Amino acid sequence: MLPFKSLIEIKKNKVPVYRQISDSIIRHIREGTIQPGAPLPGSRSMAALLGVHRNTITAAYDELLAQGWIISKPRKGMQVAVDPPLLHVVRYQQITGDASHNNKSFFNFERHFYIAPFRFPEKNSRNAVIINDGFPDIELAPVDIIIREYRRQLDNRHLKKAMYLRDHGGSPGIKQATRDFLNDSRGLKIGEKNILITRGAQMAIYIAASLILQRGDTVVVSEPNYFIANQLFEKLGAKLVAMPTDKNGMMVERIEEFVSLQDIRLLYVVPHHHHPTTVTLSAERRSLLLAMINEFNIPLIEDDYDYDFHYSNKPVLPLASGNHNGNVIYIGSYTKLLAPSFRIGYMVAAENFIHEATTHRRLMDLRGDMIMEEAIAQLINSGEMTRHIRRSLTVYRKRRNLMYEFVCSKLDGSVHCALPDGGLALWVRFNKDIPLGRLIEKAASENIFLSGSSYYLGTNQKYNGIRLGFASLTEPEMEKAFSVLENAIHR
Amino acid sequence: MLPFKSLIEIKKNKVPVYRQISDSIIRHIREGTIQPGAPLPGSRSMAALLGVHRNTITAAYDELLAQGWIISKPRKGMQVAVDPPLLHVVRYQQITGDASHNNKSFFNFERHFYIAPFRFPEKNSRNAVIINDGFPDIELAPVDIIIREYRRQLDNRHLKKAMYLRDHGGSPGIKQATRDFLNDSRGLKIGEKNILITRGAQMAIYIAASLILQRGDTVVVSEPNYFIANQLFEKLGAKLVAMPTDKNGMMVERIEEFVSLQDIRLLYVVPHHHHPTTVTLSAERRSLLLAMINEFNIPLIEDDYDYDFHYSNKPVLPLASGNHNGNVIYIGSYTKLLAPSFRIGYMVAAENFIHEATTHRRLMDLRGDMIMEEAIAQLINSGEMTRHIRRSLTVYRKRRNLMYEFVCSKLDGSVHCALPDGGLALWVRFNKDIPLGRLIEKAASENIFLSGSSYYLGTNQKYNGIRLGFASLTEPEMEKAFSVLENAIHR
Repeated sequence: MLPFKSLIEIKKNKVPVYRQISDSIIRHIREGTIQPGAPLPGSRSMAALLGVHRNTITAAYDELLAQGWIISKPRKGMQVAVDPPLLHVVRYQQITGDASHNNKSFFNFERHFYIAPFRFPEKNSRNAVIINDGFPDIELAPVDIIIREYRRQLDNRHLKKAMYLRDHGGSPGIKQATRDFLNDSRGLKIGEKNILITRGAQMAIYIAASLILQRGDTVVVSEPNYFIANQLFEKLGAKLVAMPTDKNGMMVERIEEFVSLQDIRLLYVVPHHHHPTTVTLSAERRSLLLAMINEFNIPLIEDDYDYDFHYSNKPVLPLASGNHNGNVIYIGSYTKLLAPSFRIGYMVAAENFIHEATTHRRLMDLRGDMIMEEAIAQLINSGEMTRHIRRSLTVYRKRRNLMYEFVCSKLDGSVHCALPDGGLALWVRFNKDIPLGRLIEKAASENIFLSGSSYYLGTNQKYNGIRLGFASLTEPEMEKAFSVLENAIHR
Repeated sequence: MLPFKSLIEIKKNKVPVYRQISDSIIRHIREGTIQPGAPLPGSRSMAALLGVHRNTITAAYDELLAQGWIISKPRKGMQVAVDPPLLHVVRYQQITGDASHNNKSFFNFERHFYIAPFRFPEKNSRNAVIINDGFPDIELAPVDIIIREYRRQLDNRHLKKAMYLRDHGGSPGIKQATRDFLNDSRGLKIGEKNILITRGAQMAIYIAASLILQRGDTVVVSEPNYFIANQLFEKLGAKLVAMPTDKNGMMVERIEEFVSLQDIRLLYVVPHHHHPTTVTLSAERRSLLLAMINEFNIPLIEDDYDYDFHYSNKPVLPLASGNHNGNVIYIGSYTKLLAPSFRIGYMVAAENFIHEATTHRRLMDLRGDMIMEEAIAQLINSGEMTRHIRRSLTVYRKRRNLMYEFVCSKLDGSVHCALPDGGLALWVRFNKDIPLGRLIEKAASENIFLSGSSYYLGTNQKYNGIRLGFASLTEPEMEKAFSVLENAIHR
């Protein structure tokens, strides 16, 4: 018999003893110390050999049986399987030294996009402060409720069956909840057939743009604009026509100066707390846009990612709630209400558009996480989402005011910044004599990471601006961050 | 003072009393019964009025304060906010009756894809059996461990910070774990820079095809082929050249008969348990493919979605582990190992390709669910994933054999089906005199839902075939389903 006592080492650690035993045996089978077909001692004698309880050996053997490493022979006890689950490989070609994926392949991409260098805070740097692009604070999110619901949905018999069927662009529950949530909060009048659930708003923009645009088409955007939307439209081969932006949003009335209305294939608008500038599109300009898309039958993507956080208590209803003859594709997300990791977005549009968009979505993402979708649906249906938004508003209003005060007091004279009506970030433009790139570097060297969208490279040099998210920062964190920025500016 | 006693009704139900009180007050503020600026009784007198403990009133008032409905005035107590968070809307246009999204818009899509009618099992139909396309059984998945890890990751300080930064195509943990998992199980020799994490394998295919294909390019696929891949390539404007398939997979040696090798822009191959036919591509044909892509510098998408479930214990190593000069884009998914709702896939390719793919992914999906990614990473690192695969293999092998026996005994003479070496489904082709569409309808009327990919419409009529997933069905479910199918065939 093999010297099992010396082969199997049992340590005092968190791994259960039966698992240590089964893992040891597997390792020895792999390494050939224990051969295929070899008999194993009965549980009683093995227990005696190793000085453990017999039940422990039984548990170890059960594990090995389930994994297919050993088999139980009638009247002979356990033996190692004749054909254990080793990686018997049929090699069709040897790997040679230079065959790895790291070699240059024939792919030679133009570098379309500049990816800014970014230093990630050290793992053990507990004092790092990250000023993000404008995300909600996960500490405020009802994560315990979400996890409880997630757990509950995992045991839902009906859902377990539905999970194996084709995804029709969102679980039934999340579509119903989204319908109610949007009709209540935004004055829409939509049904479930007007809704497609996506991974965050970004996927909804991608799908809508893919369905509408052909190479060479003209898209009207704002200047500056949410840069990832611009990248997307360009990737799809569209030409961008950029409208200037003032404190009332995109200067819609000037569109005809830049381009004939007939030439426009798509309008892209961020009406609430415009990205990056945080301004809100005025009611007058919204009316003008509606008149325009109705007269010329132009589709419009309304990216309303930040609707739910208004501090003035006077949200302007979305274009989607107006008279648009189905030309508005309305896009939003629950991500901005909860935390970056809960990525559930939605697209609202005419039924035939949603039908096509649902088909297109399957090409890039076969199905969503139905369990999480149903959990979030429960959060909405129970009213917890609305309560969470209300509670967050109070906190975020304070943090907005606080960060604005810091900007005014610590960066006085060096920046331009207006207090936004809503959203989760400030748009801060630095004076020309303070190069933003260097400031970001300096701050990072003192553990303050400005990770918001920044506009200072190439044609964006004129802005020298960055988004500073306030929603997930505490007062001490802000205080620390702005002291560093103040020093860095005056150094 | 208002008659609070009659305004606030407290019921015996699961809603906490303080919440019932705060919800009532909110409702009355909304409805105007309680006016902005109105004072509220002190907690002591309100408690007396309603006959509840004073702490309950304090909790209700705290909730109202946090939500911004009431404010606390020094020496005056609580009063309703002057500007409570009502939906004050600035209406820029009235919604007219015919302005809803349900009207026809200018969008008139060609119907590119036929979406088969599908009857969803009734909510209370507990006896419905769904034979899916070949998914793992969620009952076997270590969901408790996943949820525990998910919960733990939500409290991870470092991760909370990382969540607010740009996603570099997967959390650090899942990239490391995927590197180790693939190197160990598939003989790859890759680093983290060769990996992009996606929402399931489908997104990886979408991104790879988008980066490689231009309108008019030629893609070589198998016949039949995974139909969603075909839809995707066609959507991107590619021409498909379909190679016949035999029991050793795609007939690679015949490619030159159909198309000049110089004309091929992309090869798409499902080498293990081909979709839909379940056959495995032979080692000889793999060698031939490698020689071909090396000589002509043709990129190849290796869709190895089903690698981990082999019952013959002789997995053929992927093309990606061979000598391919970076031309192989290797794609797989953890979804097939766990359950349809856990959607984490991966793309493995040359560094410059992954760099470009990561940028492209952000256009459609800004970031993944980092929390879930880290939880799955822990599952892999702890060895639990490998143990889960081993345990599942034993169960799935039995179920494969069992379903194959049912096919042979119950559908004898009416079908053609070969026992697959691996994967989670059988490919069953019915005789011409049994129209598959009608059979699916008949079965559905008796609560047996065949939801696997079916090939019987249009040019697929010649197959009259469907995938029957065995992995998530118990013996009684199979027995019931096949009795119904047997009767339906002979009726």
